[in-house]
Amino acid sequence: MALESVHDLYVEHVRDLYSAEQQITEALPKMIAMATDPQLREGLTRHLEETRRQAGRLVTIAKGLDIEPEGKTCQGMKGLLDEGAEVLTEDADPAVRDTAIVSAGQRVEHYEISAYGSARTYARLLGRHADIEMLHTSISEEGGADKTLTMVGEQIIRSQVGPAA
Amino acid sequence: MALESVHDLYVEHVRDLYSAEQQITEALPKMIAMATDPQLREGLTRHLEETRRQAGRLVTIAKGLDIEPEGKTCQGMKGLLDEGAEVLTEDADPAVRDTAIVSAGQRVEHYEISAYGSARTYARLLGRHADIEMLHTSISEEGGADKTLTMVGEQIIRSQVGPAA
Repeated sequence: MALESVHDLYVEHVRDLYSAEQQITEALPKMIAMATDPQLREGLTRHLEETRRQAGRLVTIAKGLDIEPEGKTCQGMKGLLDEGAEVLTEDADPAVRDTAIVSAGQRVEHYEISAYGSARTYARLLGRHADIEMLHTSISEEGGADKTLTMVGEQIIRSQVGPAA
Repeated sequence: MALESVHDLYVEHVRDLYSAEQQITEALPKMIAMATDPQLREGLTRHLEETRRQAGRLVTIAKGLDIEPEGKTCQGMKGLLDEGAEVLTEDADPAVRDTAIVSAGQRVEHYEISAYGSARTYARLLGRHADIEMLHTSISEEGGADKTLTMVGEQIIRSQVGPAA
């Protein structure tokens, strides 16, 4: 695909993010199944619901742009989730694995905050006000998920792995 | 590799980050060669030097842990850089390509901020004070690189692509 305008870049980002959300929707249940900490499981389960709503927003945005959201594979998210899956297959202590799931989840959230942030910049340039609103909601949710993971991670570390030096 | 302790998790992160920095060291010259905006080229060139120093810090940390930093491939960074490379091969307007390079660079920085942040948490738990210091320096540099990219990206957009709505 040619990138001749901010519109092209925006379309590319929307399709990329849609693929990212689809991949996360597939990956999260496996992470939840392997997590042992109840708060971590709850946080990830809540984020799975958010992820579905975020994908729905991207479908709405794609409709407004008159494009198909499907058909692109977000290579960045694929790499992040492959990396996260490594942790699940490794022979691991439950609390250490939970800590590794938190860390993998945070890398996913950081990716999304960054990619949604770029998409919002392009939406602003293109004057797509309804899109800006939806993207902003998703960015806030990703930020919230990252904060939850930080908090849960600290608790797991404190209660099970050992005190911080 | 088994993940039985925070020490194992820390070793895994250090080797992962070393692989990430090596991959970035290879990818950045291609991005610099394709960038047209002088400030973007300068920012990426400066970050290439920082990346080499960051890899050096990880070698020092690995030496202290009595491990080899080499031998692992950071799948997360591989995905992010594959994604960034797509932009370079696509038929693109120079200013739009520069904007896409900024966006790809920011996703790389966000990954690193998140992964170095986890590593620093583990270093704290393990009481590795010299490592904490080095990781902190790298995190600050990654944060600075992200801010530079944001600033340069906004300038490119304002001056070449068009005003924000």
